[in-house]
This record gives sequence, structure tokens and C-alpha cells, in this order.
Amino acid sequence: MAKNFKGIAASNGVAIAKAYLLVDPDLSFSKTTITDVTAEQARVDDALKAASADVEIIKAKAAKNLGADEAQVFEAHLMVLADPEMSGAIKQKIADDKVNAEQAVKEVTDMYIGMFEAMTDNAYMQERAADIRDVTKRILSHLLDVSLPNPALINEEVVLVSKDLTPSDTAQLDRQFVKGILTDLGGRTAHASIMARTLEIPAVVGAEVATQEVAAGVTVIVDGLTGDVIVDPDAATLATYQQKAADYQAQRAEWALLKDQQSTSADGKTFVVGANIGSPKDLPAVLDNGAEGVGLYRTEFLYMESDHLPTEDEQFEAYKAVVEKMAGKPVTVRTMDIGGDKHLSYWKLPEEENPFLGYRAIRISLDQTEIFRTQLRALLRASAFGNLWIMFPMIATLAEFRAAKQIYTEEREKLAAAGVAMGDVKLGIMIEIPAAAMLADKFAKELDFFSIGTNDLIGYTMAADRGNDKVAYLYQPYNPSILRLINNVITAAHKEGKFVAMCGEMAGDPVAVPVLMGLGLDEFSMSAPSVLQTRSLMKKLNTADMKVLAEKALDAETNDEVIALVEAAVK
Amino acid sequence: MAKNFKGIAASNGVAIAKAYLLVDPDLSFSKTTITDVTAEQARVDDALKAASADVEIIKAKAAKNLGADEAQVFEAHLMVLADPEMSGAIKQKIADDKVNAEQAVKEVTDMYIGMFEAMTDNAYMQERAADIRDVTKRILSHLLDVSLPNPALINEEVVLVSKDLTPSDTAQLDRQFVKGILTDLGGRTAHASIMARTLEIPAVVGAEVATQEVAAGVTVIVDGLTGDVIVDPDAATLATYQQKAADYQAQRAEWALLKDQQSTSADGKTFVVGANIGSPKDLPAVLDNGAEGVGLYRTEFLYMESDHLPTEDEQFEAYKAVVEKMAGKPVTVRTMDIGGDKHLSYWKLPEEENPFLGYRAIRISLDQTEIFRTQLRALLRASAFGNLWIMFPMIATLAEFRAAKQIYTEEREKLAAAGVAMGDVKLGIMIEIPAAAMLADKFAKELDFFSIGTNDLIGYTMAADRGNDKVAYLYQPYNPSILRLINNVITAAHKEGKFVAMCGEMAGDPVAVPVLMGLGLDEFSMSAPSVLQTRSLMKKLNTADMKVLAEKALDAETNDEVIALVEAAVK
Repeated sequence: MAKNFKGIAASNGVAIAKAYLLVDPDLSFSKTTITDVTAEQARVDDALKAASADVEIIKAKAAKNLGADEAQVFEAHLMVLADPEMSGAIKQKIADDKVNAEQAVKEVTDMYIGMFEAMTDNAYMQERAADIRDVTKRILSHLLDVSLPNPALINEEVVLVSKDLTPSDTAQLDRQFVKGILTDLGGRTAHASIMARTLEIPAVVGAEVATQEVAAGVTVIVDGLTGDVIVDPDAATLATYQQKAADYQAQRAEWALLKDQQSTSADGKTFVVGANIGSPKDLPAVLDNGAEGVGLYRTEFLYMESDHLPTEDEQFEAYKAVVEKMAGKPVTVRTMDIGGDKHLSYWKLPEEENPFLGYRAIRISLDQTEIFRTQLRALLRASAFGNLWIMFPMIATLAEFRAAKQIYTEEREKLAAAGVAMGDVKLGIMIEIPAAAMLADKFAKELDFFSIGTNDLIGYTMAADRGNDKVAYLYQPYNPSILRLINNVITAAHKEGKFVAMCGEMAGDPVAVPVLMGLGLDEFSMSAPSVLQTRSLMKKLNTADMKVLAEKALDAETNDEVIALVEAAVK
Repeated sequence: MAKNFKGIAASNGVAIAKAYLLVDPDLSFSKTTITDVTAEQARVDDALKAASADVEIIKAKAAKNLGADEAQVFEAHLMVLADPEMSGAIKQKIADDKVNAEQAVKEVTDMYIGMFEAMTDNAYMQERAADIRDVTKRILSHLLDVSLPNPALINEEVVLVSKDLTPSDTAQLDRQFVKGILTDLGGRTAHASIMARTLEIPAVVGAEVATQEVAAGVTVIVDGLTGDVIVDPDAATLATYQQKAADYQAQRAEWALLKDQQSTSADGKTFVVGANIGSPKDLPAVLDNGAEGVGLYRTEFLYMESDHLPTEDEQFEAYKAVVEKMAGKPVTVRTMDIGGDKHLSYWKLPEEENPFLGYRAIRISLDQTEIFRTQLRALLRASAFGNLWIMFPMIATLAEFRAAKQIYTEEREKLAAAGVAMGDVKLGIMIEIPAAAMLADKFAKELDFFSIGTNDLIGYTMAADRGNDKVAYLYQPYNPSILRLINNVITAAHKEGKFVAMCGEMAGDPVAVPVLMGLGLDEFSMSAPSVLQTRSLMKKLNTADMKVLAEKALDAETNDEVIALVEAAVK
């Protein structure tokens, strides 16, 4: 029988497919006495073989999607599965104790795990314990004949249903098979949501009961436009949503016509609509969606996807590839934003009580200047091949900006003295810390542009971690306090004739776009799939009306009041 | 030979005394073969007896200073020390293996610790392992005849030298014996610094090399006015600092003459100078220093020092005691600010990635409304006995304030209907989140007063955790971005005829006070020992000049520039 519930609409589109549950199955069993030792030992061999086959597939996909380093953990799993000592001990136990294979596997692996875990000072042994724990689950799943899911094992069209998706889960998603995403946890700005939008997979997140209410294999409708979820729909509902999916495809086709057009309001004011990228691999989507530039190139992925600090030449190649492919359109590169929730495997940052309020981004760059200088040299060399802008993340004070600019100038002068070709480079900062927004008038005199990073700006201004469900209600992009800070930046910048971009989630949000047009924002940079929809929206709106809307929004009292104002102004 | 170094001046005054090192001693030893088993076993008995004697003293002090609950851990230590099975096993090992007592103690206790720690699912057993670890250190210290320090064991005049001081260390400090504090870590706003100022113990913190450079028992001078530290001074230096200590005492005597005066500027404008408290126990210092009110009563200590959620009557008694003793002077009570770095032993809050951006203060109160209602009822009943104001901490949005006010109003009406006597109560919010500061004009229409909590406001505005050494440089109270937010609040409040207090560290800071006078702040609330010094400073300053200074500071670019402006304006 059909069941409905609602979550948060996180990635546009409608998906209809069988549910694939990415949740841990019940692996409990009873200890039994067996008589046929040989048969029971054969079950162990079969289960080990099947588990190895699974891990081979997962390893191959991981190597392809995540790189050889990430795949190494699965190599360790295969070694455990092939270990004759372990399988020998399991079979011996079956023979000695006449217990079922499940029990023998559990007792033997528990002993290994206990042994390794007792070596608390030895990180390597702790990891081995974790490996055996993982592998044991997979062996038991085959003995018990239940499926132990893994994104890499999906080979038919499905809606993926899970509590939450980790970055390594999403990195293994195959668009060919994963037609929709449905999770219990998370919000619009969670990692899984951003990935879903980038991959253009319809998604509903934070649905709370999803993994309880959806059984594996049942048909699910995920409406990423409204947040609605229908489980096991009747024929009429199915037909309605098939129509809705088709309509959405038609609308996308209509938006596609805007691909080579400018982003102009109904009364002829032109804006820039750009796209955000994490690596040169994201450029096809940027160009396919007709973005007018890259408003944010997150260079930390270059550091995170490597197993060492990327060299100057490695960085140069990546930056050059991006500016060349963008063929003269502006590319705004953000210098390394490591720290907070972004870690490097090969460079351990200090443990912090509050990493979002800690050692990250420009704070690291100004402290470890050699790493910063390497990145700046790579950027300066790449600037000869296109239209490159540089911005510094997490700037709080003018003193920090001046220190960063000083280092930039020194490297530029050294390269110039060595005869290296360089282009004109615009220099700016991210506005994501309230202190910088408050002092925008002073910053504006010393830089070329601002780019407002709304995700962090909202988090700090509200003193709320958007990843923390308990305070997620404070992630209020339309709260007048946020709009006033944004207005302060735009007004101060324009007074000095400087350019203001926005590269947070808010820039592509249909509720925010009308207000931001009214505030006079110059560039809107977003995930590539939102570009054409935003351009389409802009074409329908009149800037004079949006100015009136913006004035009202600045004088409003609450987030909800602003939503109502936008709804009244944009029919 | 004398050695000098410098730290951060954290609590005024000059201390001269012998160093007491609160650092873990070297407890390493070699395994040796012994011949006289009986003598070696007697060493064990002696060490157990001496360790028990230490723990009895520590337990008695803890019970007195921290309460019976905190003392219970030491009861557990005594039980370990008295356990015949453990001492039997140690003696048996000496007899069997002919090893020295140190080795036998280590092997036996390691075995117990390993056993308990292996039970990873059992929190009780994990605690037992920690107890044995602690006790083992104390037994070994007696066997090795080195001192294992503890604040409770100090019984002569000393300068306490340590890496850092935990809240439970400082709670056991005895002013009679601890004349000065010197630490490697921390800043002016660290817990240890605040405690030192409250106890009026001169302190230098963040001196980095203190525990390396100072040997136990050597004479140390700690200059809490400048941050200077002199180890093993020569006679001339000693005389100079003895004079400086006397001068400071004389200045304090002069300030004491201002005790019953008003806080008035040179040109006759009157301000309110109040004091911050954590419990009724702090009131003598408030009255002795002539504070004109309690600008911040941190009620979370009532929750933290109890072993259960304080009942309505327990709270009522505490609040009533404070307003009665303040005899009509205003007492501003902050509702519970639990969470962040403030935990309750009996009520586990969720683990958070960034607790400072998480579930705390009013966010908990609005979620767990029964706890909030209990506190409000206790406050309303106490309001009949004096001049009580209530403020809500960590307010980010108007919706939160309205929700809190609604609950307050409901409880007030219920009590009124039941015929309970209540006084007039002013209702306000803490300004410590940038969002609230940005929207102060809207808040000002709906409340009676603001109180600016600068510690958190600076932290959030700068996106920097002040407890994190790596980003401590961003704790910039004079940065124009902070001053502009403060100015925004004062201007908006005064436009609506509302009152603005400040209760963060900044309110008693001699660099900030002139600027804040110029900005028109109404009340300055600080640690009690700073009240008279601030009143003395105010008497020397002219508000017209301070207004000019404030205008310049708002238009400055950096923290350092503002410091220079203040130095030029206040000679």
C-alpha cells in the first residue's frame, strides 16, 4: 500500500525506481551444534570466496573513483580474506567444537580483533582490527544470505535510500544506475545534497523515516522539487509523477535554449551567472550549462585528492587547464581552504575543540607561508593562459589581507624578474566572516573584488554549525541580519567601484535571487545545473521592483517574513 | 642566576614567593632484582599508606571546595589503595619474581588497567581503569620519593607554576597560600585568568617557557601588571619589585576611597559600573568593591555545581539571596548558559563537532522548556525581594526572543493567578551573536535592555575560538568591526530609549573603557576587583573627548590603530 512522507527538497527533478537500501542489515544468528563438519567448513570457503568477489568489485570502483590510495584499504581486506591462518582457525573451531560456521567465524575474528585492539599504542594494529571487523560483516552476510550493501555493487536503476551519505559513498555513485537519492538526515547544504545537485540526481534529504519506511526493492518516487516521497505508489500516482518527471525534462530543455544568452533582467540590467568547480573535471558541466565564468574554483580538492602536497607544477597544470578551457571567461580561484571539516591524509592538522572557529584556510596559509607561496606561483604562471582572479578565504582582518597581498606581490615580482609571463590578475577576498563584512568599506579601498561565501557567513553570523541538526533551524539565509551584512558589502564595494560576487548556496536559490538582484549583486556563482534556471528567473524580473523588495527585506524582522515578501513580489 | 621572560598580564598585582610546580614529575625507574623480600614488601605498605594520606587531604579539600559529588572520585581512589587483593598481588609478585616494588606495582596495576580497559562497552570499568592509573602514579611517586603535586597539598606561600590550570585546579586554590599564578598556556580571557582576577591573585599566563625555566622552590616574581616574570632575582631587583608591590597596594587603597562614590566622568556624565558573579558566594567582593549592581549573574554555575538539575526552590533561594543582599541595586540574571564548553555531569548533552556553534544556552532552554520554565518561576518569585532583571543568552533571531518572552509571560501569568508576589522585571537579551547585533533596531522595540557579551561576540564575529592558541591573535576587542557592531547596538537601543550594558571582559579593560564611554555605553559590568580602577579611570576622562576618540576608532582600520588612538587620547 502506498505511503507518503516528506523531506527536504535537495536536488531538482523527479526520480522513480526501485529502492536500494544502503543500511547495515541484521547479522544476528544463533549458535547451533552441527554434525557434518566438512559441509560446514565448505560453507566457510564459499562465504570467503563470495566476500572476496564483492571486495574486488568495490576495490576496482574505488580505485577508479577515489584513486589508488583510497583503494588500498580494500587490498587489506582481501589479504584478511585470503589469510590461511584465519580460515584455518575457523575450520579448526568447527571441527573441534561442532559449531555452525557463523559462530566459528565470530569467535575467531573476535579473538583477532581483541588482540589487535589491546595494542592501544599501535595505530597500525588498530586499523587491522577495523579491517577484520569490516570483513567479518561481509563474511557473515554471505553465510546468512543477506545483502550487505555498498554503492559500488549497484548495477541496475535504483533510488538510493540511506541514513546519510558520506563523501566516500557519493564518490562511488554511478549516475547511470543511481536515479534518485533519499536520506534520513542532512539539509540542503549537506555534502550529499551538494553532490546530488552536481551530479543532477534528484534528491530528498532529512526525511527522518526513510530507512524505516522504505523496504528494499519496492518502487519509490522521490520528488526533489517539493521534498515529497511516495513509497509503492498506485497506478494513478505513478502516472502523475511520470508526467511531472517529463514536464521537468521539458522545462530543462527550455532552459537549455538560454545556454548562449546573457543573464539579463526584464528591464535589461545584465548580471553575471557563473558556476562553482572543485577540479578541471567539473568543466564540461560548466560549459554545457552556459556559465559565464567560474565564480569559485575550490583548490583544496587538489590537495585533498592527492597523497602529498601538490607541487607547483602539478598545481600549475590544473589551473592552466581551467583558465584555458574557459577561454577568456573569468576564473576566480580560491586559495587553499583546508581545515574545519576538510582534512588531508598526509598532513595532520592539530585537533581542535571547535574546528570551524580554528586553524584553517588563510590562517594556515599565513602561518605556513612556503605552501602558500607555492600555490601563488602556480597561479601566477597559469594567469598567462586566461582570465584568472585570486581570492583569499576566511579573511577576518585587514592585517591578514595585507599580509597575504604582500606575499602575493613578492612572488609576482620574483617571477617578473625571472622573465615569467603573467596575465593581469584581480585580487579579492571571500566574505564569510562577519568582521570582514562589517569593515567592507575599508577593504574595498585595497582590493579588486569581494566574493560572498554565504554558507560560512550564515554559520558565523548565526553562531550555528549548519552540519548540526540541533541548530539547523538557525541556517536562515533570508534573515534580515544576513541581508544587511550582504547589503553592507555591496554598498561599500560599489562606492569604490569594486565588483561583488556571491559563491555560496544562496546565489542559486530562487528565493534569494530576486532580493540579491535588488541589492545589486554583480555575479551569482552556483552549482552548474542551477545556472540556466537562474538565468531564466532573472529574465522574468524587473530590477526596479526587486529594489523595492530588497528595501522591504532589509527592514523585515524574520527569515519567514522575507520569504513571504519574495512570494508576494515574484508570482 | 636571575632569568627573565614575559607572558600575558592576566591579573593585576605583583607576587613574590617560592615556586610550586604543578607539573607531572618523572616517574620512570629501572627493574632491579632484590634479595630482601620482606623489606621490599614493607616499602609497598609504606607507599600505600603515604598515598592514602595524600588522597585523604585532597578529598577533604575537594569536598569543601567542589562538593561531595566531586570528592567521590577520591573515595574511589582510597578504595583502590585499600584493596587487599591488589596489594596482595603486588607483594606476591615481589616474592615470586624478586623484583623491586616499583616493578611489581607497575606490572600488577597494568594488568588491572588492561583488564578494565578491554571492557570497552562498560563506562564504569573504563572509569575504574582511570582511577587505577591515577592511584598508581601516586604510589610510584612515594616509592621514588618525588613529589606529585596537587593544589590541595599546598600549605605555604607560593607562586603556582603550571602548564595550564583546569577549573578543578583553580577551585581548590587557597588565597592564603597561593600568592601568584604563572602558566605556559592561555590568554587574558582563559578560565584561569578570570579566576585569578576574581580571587585577586596576580597572574601571568601564556608565558610558554614557565614550567621549563622555573625550578621548584626557587623565588619567582610575577608582575601581573606587565606580564614580566623574574626567576631567582638579585637583591636589587627584589627590592624594586617589593616597592612595586607596595605601590600597587597603595594605589588599591586610593581606589578604595571611591567605593561609595558614583561612576562619573570628568564632565559629569554618570555611568553604572557593575560586577559579574557566578554565585551568591561572590557577593562580598561585589559589595567590598562598591559595584553599583550585578550586571551579570551566571546561573549556570548553580547547575554545574549541583549533582542534579536544581529544583525551583533551590534556585529561588539562590536568586533571593542575591537580590536581597544587593538591597535594591539592579541584579541582571542570565538564564542558564549550558553547552559549548560548560557541561553537566548528570545531564549528557550530545557530542558536537563545533560545540561553540551548537546546542547551548537559549537553544537548550527553548527545546527543553520544562527546565526553562522552572528557572523562570524561581526568578519571578525572587523578583519580589529586590530589583531583578532577566536576560536570555545566545539569542540569534527575533523569533527566539519572542518564543522565550512568550514562555516568560505564561509563567508570570500563572504565578499572578496563584497570588504569588512578584516585582517589576526588566527583560533583555545578551548580544553575543553577530545576527542579533545587526538587528538591534528591531530587537530594541520589543525588550527593555541589551547586555553585550564581548567574549563570545568577538569570537563569532572573528570566527575564532579564543581558547585555541593557533587563532588567539584574532581575539581583537578593539577591531573596528567589533566596535561598529557595538555602536550599532548602542545607537539602536538609545533611539528606542533602551538601556545598554556590557558584561564581557572588555567592559573592565582600560583600553576599551574610553572608547565605550565615547560610544555612550550605559553600564560597564566586570569582575569585582576591576570596579574601582574603572571608576577611577572614568573620573579622569571627558565624554566630549571620548566621543571624538570613538568616532576615530569606528573609522579606523585595525585593532592596533585603535590602541594607538586610545593611547594618544588618554595620557
